[in-house]
Amino acid sequence: MLNKEIRFARRPAGMPTVDSFNIADTEVPQLNDGEVLVRTLYISVDPYLRGRMREGRSYVPPFEVGEVIVSGVVGEVVESRAPEFAPGEIVTGMLGWRLCNAARAPELRKVDPRVAPVTTALGVLGMPGLTAYFGLLDIGNPKEGETVVVSGAAGAVGMTVCQIAKIKGCRVVGIAGSDEKNQYLTAELGVDAAINYKSPEMSRALREACPKGIDVYFDNVGGEVSDAVFPLLKHGARVVICGQISLYCLDKPDIGPRPQTYLLINSALMKGFIITEYAARFAEGVVNLTQWLVAGKLKYAETVVEGFENTPQAFIGLFSGDNLGKQLVKVA
Amino acid sequence: MLNKEIRFARRPAGMPTVDSFNIADTEVPQLNDGEVLVRTLYISVDPYLRGRMREGRSYVPPFEVGEVIVSGVVGEVVESRAPEFAPGEIVTGMLGWRLCNAARAPELRKVDPRVAPVTTALGVLGMPGLTAYFGLLDIGNPKEGETVVVSGAAGAVGMTVCQIAKIKGCRVVGIAGSDEKNQYLTAELGVDAAINYKSPEMSRALREACPKGIDVYFDNVGGEVSDAVFPLLKHGARVVICGQISLYCLDKPDIGPRPQTYLLINSALMKGFIITEYAARFAEGVVNLTQWLVAGKLKYAETVVEGFENTPQAFIGLFSGDNLGKQLVKVA
Repeated sequence: MLNKEIRFARRPAGMPTVDSFNIADTEVPQLNDGEVLVRTLYISVDPYLRGRMREGRSYVPPFEVGEVIVSGVVGEVVESRAPEFAPGEIVTGMLGWRLCNAARAPELRKVDPRVAPVTTALGVLGMPGLTAYFGLLDIGNPKEGETVVVSGAAGAVGMTVCQIAKIKGCRVVGIAGSDEKNQYLTAELGVDAAINYKSPEMSRALREACPKGIDVYFDNVGGEVSDAVFPLLKHGARVVICGQISLYCLDKPDIGPRPQTYLLINSALMKGFIITEYAARFAEGVVNLTQWLVAGKLKYAETVVEGFENTPQAFIGLFSGDNLGKQLVKVA
Repeated sequence: MLNKEIRFARRPAGMPTVDSFNIADTEVPQLNDGEVLVRTLYISVDPYLRGRMREGRSYVPPFEVGEVIVSGVVGEVVESRAPEFAPGEIVTGMLGWRLCNAARAPELRKVDPRVAPVTTALGVLGMPGLTAYFGLLDIGNPKEGETVVVSGAAGAVGMTVCQIAKIKGCRVVGIAGSDEKNQYLTAELGVDAAINYKSPEMSRALREACPKGIDVYFDNVGGEVSDAVFPLLKHGARVVICGQISLYCLDKPDIGPRPQTYLLINSALMKGFIITEYAARFAEGVVNLTQWLVAGKLKYAETVVEGFENTPQAFIGLFSGDNLGKQLVKVA
């Protein structure tokens, strides 16, 4: 049985291209004791992977050129030398972009297909959902009646943030990159107002959508989108820095209005985070997200590209906003 | 008996000038029941007052043109219609820039000249000291062995921050605007390294002074000084936004590298504050600051300008860094 893997071919300058990757034929690995052979069903492509393609410090160590790219994967156990896993079971973990991975048992977590479609383990019930849950509730700390603004609102994290903020009784304003996405946010997810950041009227639209100012800003985007938000912050506002996708492919310094004065005059807080810091509380997050999902209070969207070899293109598309909700690659 | 007062004459564009103020002869006010007549001994001039000279929102409401400027004052009770205060007692409060103020008793706090010179009520034991205490300990939360960087380190707030951080066992690096100030910080206050922000080598000097990176940045200055700090932040760093004096007289947007990426990759926190939010804990702060002062662990410096009519000039001098430590005006 032949295996394939996608390796990091060269560090991109600016936007990654398909040439940043190469696909290689390899062998299906032989299992050692305690290992499981996982056939990839779905691959998650995530904006933060761009940071790992840069030399030097990001929030995770950089990929080395020649290495296999690693991200969230859902797969099926096809062979097991670990007593915890049996063939046919569905699992998820951080695995290589391969048709088949050998994984050590502690790296894997079982996915129960009776609870929700298995793809949710990479989205609303996985890292993006947990990122939304802990970033919003732990740092943003939204209170009933407050105004929450979410950038990247139509992405996997952003749309979950929007809905949790609605569950908490907030006025929610989403910022996304197309009228179709914004239509989804308001019509399907109950977001109170949605703003297209590509509109020249963004600042005015945001001001009108937040007549009482902004209490919580959950930022996935950064750059000029954030510039429009800071002047509207209220006293005691909280800014959650979850991502800065508008900058990940920027090959020059990120220059713009410094936001410190807005924090000063509003006694406001701004905090970055990375979801792995909340690992000890993941169970709490998954339980709550699952309950909301099952109760119909939490919806999700997925954009699925078919075919293992299209994984790089699916990843690249994140930076032009091709995806509504979670961007996945369906492999098998 | 004649009185004098200094009024806000016109909103400055950029740097305030003496024409931003005018001095007027007035009457000594008649007291109502519950009021105290206070003869001004010392006036505190503070950078944040520049914010009140701007129209629109700062952290305190703007002064109206024609109004008397208000700031911290230490004075002597010369007449009292309030049972809590007797003539001859020394008091402090937020009072007008006047030779004599009529103040309601609850606006005043007694100053005990046996504990420390009465001017400390406007400096190390007053608002600047409390600002340093709560900003550093509550937001910065420095731990033994951590590296704390302080901008505006030779000002009233900054030098108190430096010393509290030393008391807490930190490596302390001060940033100030002259070699004389930096000599004071290292030789008199025990700061581990001091950097002149006017040096073209500031960034390199800061990097060398912080070989393990920066855990806490207490910022009084903003702008390019902060630009040099952000790339050195460590994981979990805390940035305290206490002031942005380099911007207060700026009449254009504050453009520079946006700091959000540094917060993101370090899971770092940045928070603005205003000292009045800690009013419920002022007693704790004053007790600790006083104990350190009496024990010789906390020093202070004052720059005193003589003469009521020189108050505007003393205020203006803050923005060119004329002062070492607390800038005061000696009135009587």
